[in-house]
Amino acid sequence: MVAITTLPRNETGIETALGILKQRFGEKFQTGQAIREQHGHTTTWIENQMPDAVVFPHSTQEVAEIVKICAEHKVPVIPFGTGTSLEGHINAPAGGVSVDLSEMNKVLAVHAEDLQAVVQPGVTREDLNTHLRDKGLFFPIDPGANASLGGMTATRASGTNAVRYGTMKDNVIGLEVVMADGTVIRTAHRAKKSSAGYDLTRLLVGSEGTLGLITEITLRLQGIPEAISAARCSFPSVDAACRAAMMAIQYGLPVARMELLDADSVRAINNYSKLGLPEEPLLLLEFHGSEAGVAEQTEMFQAIAEEVGGKGYEAAASTEDRNRLWKARHDAYWAIQTLRPGTQALATDVCVPISRLAECVTAAQARLAELGLLGPIAGHVGDGNFHNALLVDMNDPEERAKADEFTGWLAELAVSMDGTCTGEHGIGQGKMPYLKRELGPATTYMAAIKRAMDPDNIMNPGKIVAL
Amino acid sequence: MVAITTLPRNETGIETALGILKQRFGEKFQTGQAIREQHGHTTTWIENQMPDAVVFPHSTQEVAEIVKICAEHKVPVIPFGTGTSLEGHINAPAGGVSVDLSEMNKVLAVHAEDLQAVVQPGVTREDLNTHLRDKGLFFPIDPGANASLGGMTATRASGTNAVRYGTMKDNVIGLEVVMADGTVIRTAHRAKKSSAGYDLTRLLVGSEGTLGLITEITLRLQGIPEAISAARCSFPSVDAACRAAMMAIQYGLPVARMELLDADSVRAINNYSKLGLPEEPLLLLEFHGSEAGVAEQTEMFQAIAEEVGGKGYEAAASTEDRNRLWKARHDAYWAIQTLRPGTQALATDVCVPISRLAECVTAAQARLAELGLLGPIAGHVGDGNFHNALLVDMNDPEERAKADEFTGWLAELAVSMDGTCTGEHGIGQGKMPYLKRELGPATTYMAAIKRAMDPDNIMNPGKIVAL
Repeated sequence: MVAITTLPRNETGIETALGILKQRFGEKFQTGQAIREQHGHTTTWIENQMPDAVVFPHSTQEVAEIVKICAEHKVPVIPFGTGTSLEGHINAPAGGVSVDLSEMNKVLAVHAEDLQAVVQPGVTREDLNTHLRDKGLFFPIDPGANASLGGMTATRASGTNAVRYGTMKDNVIGLEVVMADGTVIRTAHRAKKSSAGYDLTRLLVGSEGTLGLITEITLRLQGIPEAISAARCSFPSVDAACRAAMMAIQYGLPVARMELLDADSVRAINNYSKLGLPEEPLLLLEFHGSEAGVAEQTEMFQAIAEEVGGKGYEAAASTEDRNRLWKARHDAYWAIQTLRPGTQALATDVCVPISRLAECVTAAQARLAELGLLGPIAGHVGDGNFHNALLVDMNDPEERAKADEFTGWLAELAVSMDGTCTGEHGIGQGKMPYLKRELGPATTYMAAIKRAMDPDNIMNPGKIVAL
Repeated sequence: MVAITTLPRNETGIETALGILKQRFGEKFQTGQAIREQHGHTTTWIENQMPDAVVFPHSTQEVAEIVKICAEHKVPVIPFGTGTSLEGHINAPAGGVSVDLSEMNKVLAVHAEDLQAVVQPGVTREDLNTHLRDKGLFFPIDPGANASLGGMTATRASGTNAVRYGTMKDNVIGLEVVMADGTVIRTAHRAKKSSAGYDLTRLLVGSEGTLGLITEITLRLQGIPEAISAARCSFPSVDAACRAAMMAIQYGLPVARMELLDADSVRAINNYSKLGLPEEPLLLLEFHGSEAGVAEQTEMFQAIAEEVGGKGYEAAASTEDRNRLWKARHDAYWAIQTLRPGTQALATDVCVPISRLAECVTAAQARLAELGLLGPIAGHVGDGNFHNALLVDMNDPEERAKADEFTGWLAELAVSMDGTCTGEHGIGQGKMPYLKRELGPATTYMAAIKRAMDPDNIMNPGKIVAL
C-alpha cells in the first residue's frame, strides 16, 4: 500500500482561522464530524484524512475571502466538488479548510453562437447538459460520474468521449482562479485561440487545486450531432478487441466513443444491469455525425472488426437501447464490485500509445492471473487508456500487498511503453511516487512552480509534488 | 511605436562565455557581423538587436553545454529557428548568444501506428510533410511561412488549418527541453492523454524560449484525408463573409480551412499571383474527409454562403488549381506589400469570439479609413482571428504614430470583445504592453513562473514578461 503521509499541522493557525471563518460565514461554515468525514471521503482505497472545517461559499468574492483568511494564518485550503476523485485529492493531510463549491452551481452564460458556456465550478456535467439541451448544444466530456466541472477541470478529466472530443485541457477556454494569496485572476478571455503569454489555463487544468482554486470556467461546447448511433461487438480476445480499436484510430475513423470491457466486466454488467450480453471481450461504440456520415463510420468499423474476428456486431436499435448500453458502461465500476462482495475496488489508470495497448492489456491480465487477483478491465481504448478495477479484501494484508505490487508494476510497464501512470485520474496522493518515476527531473520544475505560486504551501498541500 | 527597450549587458560575462564557446564549438561558433544581424532580423517593424555570437549545436547535449556555459556566466540565450517570427522574439536586447537550431533538423522517429512523429526543433513543417508523404500521414499546422517546428512550438503557432486541427498546443504531445541551468527534462511521454501533474508541455508551448530551449518535439499527426476539396466564394462585404464563416462554425461544419481576404488583399494577390479573382471580399475554403463527406460539406457551405449573399462559389477543379489558390493565400503577406512599394508591413493579430468577428473586422476597416491608413485584411476567420497588414512608410513619423495608434486601438477593441491581442503571433517584445492590458494580475503569476524556472533571467530575456 502506498503510504499516505500525514503532514505537520499548524494548530494555532487553524484555530484562529476557524474562529474568523465561523464568525464570517455563519451557517455556511460547518465543523460536524459527519460532514468533515464526508469531505475526506474517496471512492477508492485511500484512507480518510478529514479537514477541520467545511465552508460553502456562494461567490468568487467569498472564495477569495476564505483563501485570504487561510493565507494569513497559513492554513490549508482544499477544494471539494462532488468527491468522486480517486487518488485522495480531497484529503487534508495537514488539516485545514475544505471549500465545498457545490453551492456555486450556476450556469453564468451560454454563448450559443460561439459554442461556449461560462459556469461556476459546482455545476455538474449532467446539470450543464440538461441546461443546454433545448439549445441543440452539449458538453462532451464524460468521466462517468456526475462530477462537478470544477473538479473535472482540476483533475484534467476525460472519459468515454475523449477519443473524439479530447480531454478537459482541450475543452476549457479560460478560467477565473483564486490564487494562494486571495488574488483573483483570469487566465484567458473567450477567443478560441490565443498566444498571449504562458498558458496559465492549461497549467491550472490538472493542477488539482494545488496552485489555485477555480471559481469560473469557460467551456467549449459542441452542437448535438444530427445523428448518433451506438453499437457493440464481441471479440475472441482482448488482444483482438484492442487491435480493432487501434485500426479504427489509424484509419482516422472519427468514432465518438470506443470502450473495451473484458469478459469479467461484461459478466459484471450483465449481473448488475440485466443485459444478457455474450460474456466475451466487448467493444461499445458510438458514432456522431450526419446521417450519411454515421452510416459510413458504422460500416467501416464493422469491416475492421470482422478483419480481427469480431462477431455479433449489433447497432443499438433505439435511443432507449443506446442509453441503456451506456448507463451499463457507466455503472461498470459499481457492477464490478458486486463480483466479489465485501471487497474494495482499486482503479488503475495507465495510458499507453495505442500501438502498445494490446500488449499492455494482455500483460496486465497475465500478471493478475499470476498474482491470483481479480481485476476486470474497462477502458477508453481509443485513447490507449484502461482501468483495472482490482477487487481487494482490505482486511487481507497479503492481498493488499499484491494489489500494490500490481499497481506499481503496471505503472512501470506503461512508462516503459512510453505511456503514463495516469491517463485521467490524476496524481493526488496515491500516484506521487509514480509521477517521479515517470517524469524524473521534470518534477523538480513542477515543485518550483508550486513554490512560486503558493510559497506557504497552503493550496491542497501534499498532492502532486511534495515540497 | 512601442518602445523596444535595451536591457543592461553583462559585458564581462559575455566576453568570458564567448571565449569558452569559441574554444568548445570551433566552426559551429560564429561572430561575424552579417550572421549576427541576420539572427536579429525580423520580418516586421521591430528594430534589430543582434546577439554577440551565434552557435549551431547538433545535439541536445551540445545545447545543454551551451546553456550551462551561459548560465555560469549569466549570459542570455536566445533560440533561433528560421527567423520568421513577427514580434521580435529572436532579438537580443541584453546581447548574448543566439542558438541556431537549424542544424538539428532530423526526423527522429515516425510512429505511424500511433499517428506521431518525433522531431528535432530545426525540422521545418514542409520538411516534415515531405518526409511523411509516402506514409499517408501529414502534420496539419500551417502558419504560412515554412517555419521550424521548434519555433512553431515556442510561439504556439497555428494558421490556416487550425479551425479543424487546432494549434500547436493541441498537436504537441511531449517535449524534451533544456532548462535554464542546463538540465534536460522530458515533459511527457507518448500517451495520447495524461493527468500526470502540471502540464509542463502546454506551459512550454508558447513560452517563446523564455523558460527553456526545446530540443525535441513529439507531434500528433493526421492521416491524409481520402478526399480534399478547395473552393472560393465572393461576398458583397466583409460582414457577409464573416457571417458565412460564423454560420459554418455554428453549424458544426468540420471545414479544414476558411480564410478571409478583403478586397484590397484580393487585389494584391491578383497582382502578385496573376489569379484574376473578383476584387471583392473572398472566402477560401478547404474540406477534408471521405468523398461523400467532402461532397456533403461543400454542399452545406454553398447553401450557407448563398443565404448571406455569397456568389461565384467555385470549387478548385484540380489539385493544381487548389495548390495555386493556397500558394496565393500564403504569399498574401508579400503580395500586400507590393500594393505600396517602399513601405513596411506591420501585422496585427487579434482574435475574438466568432460572434464578434464581423463587428470587429468592420470596425477595423472603418478606423483605418478614418486614420487614412492602408491595412488589407487576411484572416483565419473560422477561429475569429484576422491580420491587418498595415503598409507603413517607416520614414514618416506621423504615419508610424498612426499605425501604432491603430494597433493599440485594435488590441483594446479585441479585449473589450472578450478576445485577445494575439491569436497566433505571440507576445515577444512587440505586444508586452497589450498582454498586461489583456490579462492584468495574471501576468504577475507569469513573472513568478519565469523567476522560478529561470532565476538569473538568461532565457530569451525581455520577452513576454519584464522582470
